[in-house]
Amino acid sequence: MNNIQSDNYIVYFNDSITELAKFVKQGNYSRAFILTDEHTTEHCLPIVKEQLDELDNFDLIEVNAGEESKTIDFCIGIWKTLIDFGADRKALLINLGGGVITDMGGFVASTYKRGIDFVQVPTTLLSQVDASVGGKTGVDMDAVKNIIGTFTQPKAVFMYGGFLQTLPARQILSGLAEMLKHGLIVDKTYWDQLKISDLTLPSDELVHRSVQIKNEVVIADPHEKGIRKALNFGHTVGHAVETWSLMNDTDPLSHGEAIAIGMICEAWLSNKKIGLPDSELLEITEVLIHLYPRYKIDEGTFPTLLEHMQKDKKNQNGQINCTLLKHIGKYSIDNICTEDELCDSLRYYADL
Amino acid sequence: MNNIQSDNYIVYFNDSITELAKFVKQGNYSRAFILTDEHTTEHCLPIVKEQLDELDNFDLIEVNAGEESKTIDFCIGIWKTLIDFGADRKALLINLGGGVITDMGGFVASTYKRGIDFVQVPTTLLSQVDASVGGKTGVDMDAVKNIIGTFTQPKAVFMYGGFLQTLPARQILSGLAEMLKHGLIVDKTYWDQLKISDLTLPSDELVHRSVQIKNEVVIADPHEKGIRKALNFGHTVGHAVETWSLMNDTDPLSHGEAIAIGMICEAWLSNKKIGLPDSELLEITEVLIHLYPRYKIDEGTFPTLLEHMQKDKKNQNGQINCTLLKHIGKYSIDNICTEDELCDSLRYYADL
Ligand SMILES: NC(=O)c1ccc[n+]([C@@H]2O[C@H](COP(=O)([O-])OP(=O)(O)OC[C@H]3O[C@@H](n4cnc5c(N)ncnc54)[C@H](O)[C@@H]3O)[C@@H](O)[C@H]2O)c1
Ligand SMILES: NC(=O)c1ccc[n+]([C@@H]2O[C@H](COP(=O)([O-])OP(=O)(O)OC[C@H]3O[C@@H](n4cnc5c(N)ncnc54)[C@H](O)[C@@H]3O)[C@@H](O)[C@H]2O)c1
Ligand SMILES: [Zn+2]
Ligand SMILES: [Zn+2]
Repeated sequence: MNNIQSDNYIVYFNDSITELAKFVKQGNYSRAFILTDEHTTEHCLPIVKEQLDELDNFDLIEVNAGEESKTIDFCIGIWKTLIDFGADRKALLINLGGGVITDMGGFVASTYKRGIDFVQVPTTLLSQVDASVGGKTGVDMDAVKNIIGTFTQPKAVFMYGGFLQTLPARQILSGLAEMLKHGLIVDKTYWDQLKISDLTLPSDELVHRSVQIKNEVVIADPHEKGIRKALNFGHTVGHAVETWSLMNDTDPLSHGEAIAIGMICEAWLSNKKIGLPDSELLEITEVLIHLYPRYKIDEGTFPTLLEHMQKDKKNQNGQINCTLLKHIGKYSIDNICTEDELCDSLRYYADL
Repeated sequence: MNNIQSDNYIVYFNDSITELAKFVKQGNYSRAFILTDEHTTEHCLPIVKEQLDELDNFDLIEVNAGEESKTIDFCIGIWKTLIDFGADRKALLINLGGGVITDMGGFVASTYKRGIDFVQVPTTLLSQVDASVGGKTGVDMDAVKNIIGTFTQPKAVFMYGGFLQTLPARQILSGLAEMLKHGLIVDKTYWDQLKISDLTLPSDELVHRSVQIKNEVVIADPHEKGIRKALNFGHTVGHAVETWSLMNDTDPLSHGEAIAIGMICEAWLSNKKIGLPDSELLEITEVLIHLYPRYKIDEGTFPTLLEHMQKDKKNQNGQINCTLLKHIGKYSIDNICTEDELCDSLRYYADL
């Protein structure tokens, strides 16, 4: 497996923890900080420590695990810690965790002293195949996801499949949704391969292909002006469902669980609006319904869901914009969907 | 007077308020927001309104005047207002005010939805000759100035000398310090011109020359890796004095008043360390002491001042770094100063 060259930085797949150690040594940083949550402190930090003797000299900044931590309040806590420790412009932030840590850590680093270096060490499947590549950083506010953030590239990304061994099954499923999406939007062969693979612990090769796809798309369109919107497939509806669940459920949906629902709804929209064949709609629906738990969506929640979609940052001029599929492996961006159509797509899911 | 071309954007000097109206009309924005403080709402908004009929449709976001507002808490307030108003990626933020408004507004815009367009309409002399050009945005935290921010260029800057007519004399003096600095670091002729001008209300031509100088320096070094440090002359000591004053005085020093003190101290350091001629040290000291009110600095405050200098974002590896002068009009960057030297320079000022 080759390392992947992205925009000015490398995504390491081979001996990546050794490469991290090398990177830190050669970087001549004035000080290194590691950002973790309690789960990655327990499960992932020891793995990194084995390779990185100097780690004992690093300052650990730990936040509470979970999306609820991905807020400006936690950023303030991290910024103040950096200030207290006297971190200067040549400080390095190592983000060791899932997407919450890599997104929030990226944002904090990109704004501390107008930007210090950071590297991503993604420890969940979702953050490996999605969050850690593409340069999007950010935090949530007022229940709007990723509303505050920057486009800033890390100095490097270090991928290590071994982290996934301690990851709960539900978290694997969450990342898997993005891998399936990558197949659906641009690579039918990859989708077909995923269908027949053991997906309880996706292989390094499958992860690698996903990162390759995401990387190609974001390099072509770093600021989400055009084809990067391909990656939004499933996300217009999915984000709204995710937000709703976060605000209402005691055990909310994961990102991928919500996106899986979104992909079913948006596959239905693709069928209705731009001719995704019936057989492919059926195939997508069956694969996803089989992999992911059912979620109850009442008619009564539709208005709130539509409101969330309206607030979606992908919209312009108040119209709701979806990325859909012409075929499996062939996306189509900028499809404006009416509220009626979106409600019907939710009904399709609810009635399955 | 010519408009000035900066990095991808224009600094308008001619008919600039008309140009602003044109810019907004041609920009096809989904919505425009104007950020002000109570003083600029009173004195500057009416001037803009005369040219910009549509202004009535704009949403006004007003914050309290003063450096105390330049915090992440106020940013949160502005972000939430944008969210509440449903601002999308094609929204525009017009920052109408002094450096507090242009710095904070720039930061908010550069991070809202990972960046929306913003323009600067600087209404103080300081923000015209300094803050609005160069792409630095930011806010203060824990009494550390500009510690959180980004490098993001505005889409345009609109300079209008008429705003200065309502500006208090002390605010004129504040901006003047940066103009004097521009002369001292790169343009002896400009310095000589300033010495003999009526400085109670600097002419458009003098402002223009200052913007030109600042612009040339920042274009050559957008991320402050090298020659941009020229602009830090007076700022290592000056920022520390400013921070101290903010924390301790009921009527704290303005930025420029503090920088004037810093320039005297750093002229002394220039004389001691890199051969600024005695006569030039004397000249600089006399001009500044004559223009600016005296400020009492006790020996007892030196340790706190040094601490602030240590925290200065210009430092690396814990050493205090100053930009000094070889001659009037000839700067020298990266001069490491010891704590003893810095204390002696403060004594020079205190004993004048
Ligand atoms: N920047 C982007 O382009 C992008 C793309 C997709 C998602 N995201 C963001 O990513 C976030 C979701 O990512 P996530 O699911 O990784 O969230 P997460 O960081 O909350 O991780 C999920 C859970 O797994 C735990 N965990 C992490 N690594 C572990 C390991 N190796 N072993 C055991 N437990 C471990 C975490 O502590 C947490 O409890 C969302 O906030 C989403 O917005 C960003
Ligand atoms: N980004 C940069 O490169 C840069 C450079 C220099 C300074 N700064 C920042 O600029 C800030 C200081 O700028 P400032 O002095 O303009 O501060 P300011 O914005 O607080 O303005 C000073 C005062 O003048 C009032 N005012 C503004 N325009 C007026 C007008 N036309 N008539 C009457 N009153 C008016 C304001 O309400 C305020 O009370 C500091 O926060 C500093 O860090 C930034
Ligand atoms: Zn996603
Ligand atoms: Zn200054």
